[in-house]
Amino acid sequence: MNIILLEPSEVVDQTIVLDGSRAKHIIKVLRSNPGDRLKVGMINGKIGGGLIKFLSARQPYSVTLAVRFEREPPPVPAIDILLALPRPIMLRRILSQVATLGIGHLYVVNANRVEKSFWNGSITKVQSCRKYFLDGLEQAGDTRLPGISFHRGFKPFMEEFARLIPVYKQLLLAHPDCSISITEAFQTGTGRTLLAIGPEGGWVDYELNRLGEAGFSMFSLGSRILKVETAVTALHSIVSLLNEE
Amino acid sequence: MNIILLEPSEVVDQTIVLDGSRAKHIIKVLRSNPGDRLKVGMINGKIGGGLIKFLSARQPYSVTLAVRFEREPPPVPAIDILLALPRPIMLRRILSQVATLGIGHLYVVNANRVEKSFWNGSITKVQSCRKYFLDGLEQAGDTRLPGISFHRGFKPFMEEFARLIPVYKQLLLAHPDCSISITEAFQTGTGRTLLAIGPEGGWVDYELNRLGEAGFSMFSLGSRILKVETAVTALHSIVSLLNEE
Repeated sequence: MNIILLEPSEVVDQTIVLDGSRAKHIIKVLRSNPGDRLKVGMINGKIGGGLIKFLSARQPYSVTLAVRFEREPPPVPAIDILLALPRPIMLRRILSQVATLGIGHLYVVNANRVEKSFWNGSITKVQSCRKYFLDGLEQAGDTRLPGISFHRGFKPFMEEFARLIPVYKQLLLAHPDCSISITEAFQTGTGRTLLAIGPEGGWVDYELNRLGEAGFSMFSLGSRILKVETAVTALHSIVSLLNEE
Repeated sequence: MNIILLEPSEVVDQTIVLDGSRAKHIIKVLRSNPGDRLKVGMINGKIGGGLIKFLSARQPYSVTLAVRFEREPPPVPAIDILLALPRPIMLRRILSQVATLGIGHLYVVNANRVEKSFWNGSITKVQSCRKYFLDGLEQAGDTRLPGISFHRGFKPFMEEFARLIPVYKQLLLAHPDCSISITEAFQTGTGRTLLAIGPEGGWVDYELNRLGEAGFSMFSLGSRILKVETAVTALHSIVSLLNEE
């Protein structure tokens, strides 16, 4: 944990008493003592410092912090992701990963090559995602939870999606069978980018056509085929870099 | 598997009989039939096609392929990585990841903030890494195994390393406490890049000084703190992109 994240309701009179996993982490991993300062953040809010007033180093663990919130969290990259539902274990890792990297919204959609059973995973409920997002924010040192939505029908999603298009400066679609590089496809300038990442095995032609009609520009990162979770980090890093240039 | 990888000794008269996990994968996951063609590759050699002649779809699984090797594997990005030993479970994932992304050599070194127990993991033996590299190559569709070496002493490694420096056009070190961006630090032009990625918690000052003396240029990807495995993919992708520009 590079930041201790707090719920607004937990802080009373600029003081918070932590127990459970956060207290254990402070005592056992960070090996902190009274008088030490920790980085703290209000979920979806400001970042600040917490001074350890007391701690109970034996079970049940407990840590009392005097907290102050002074500054805004780091900027969120102007990137959203449209992801074909991957297998649940991979989705959990991707949720933490995108919270660490920083995104605005994750649209998780169905696709022809998504195994139907993946939709039975408990992780396809919005409320189940929060824990993994928080893990990722604790790693990054950020407080801002990404947005997430699940869309079990590709076609209805694309219809709904039409009204979101004006939000984006560009819609990009990574596709191996394509000779355009990301630098050729990328539009510089301010504005948000939506990155579409397909299922293992790729989008089928119908889906590619619908995405193309919606305004997605295809590009390829080369002939190497990446796992979905590797592609998420690779593409996010590249778009962040190109946005800065 | 996006390619079936073969050992040179397995192929006799342009024919190979597969059993075990590769045969099972072809039958159960790819659901291939006699007459189908598969992408095959010789480990550290050429890529080609395999025509399924016979298969036994019941245990013990077996697939007989007539193979031809026609073309070179995709180019390997001109990137090597110097990595402080992460925990074994993460190293296994990173081995597959770097084989998928493509690198020349991975130097795994000790550092002050590496937990000593990590060196007890069986994965710190060169021969244990091959399996994870092959997994990554099967994902990428590549045949070229990365090189790997383990260095249990940071200081002796840095002494040995001196003679390798001329191999590289640049040595780059990702470090959060630094105001130089990667585009500022990056040298364009042909040649290999060595990327140094520290342990969780970062390099200590002594290590940073030694790396600096050896010629590493520091840069930062911003204030978000990435997990080591996320940093590997992020930095590799960015350096690959900058190499192409």
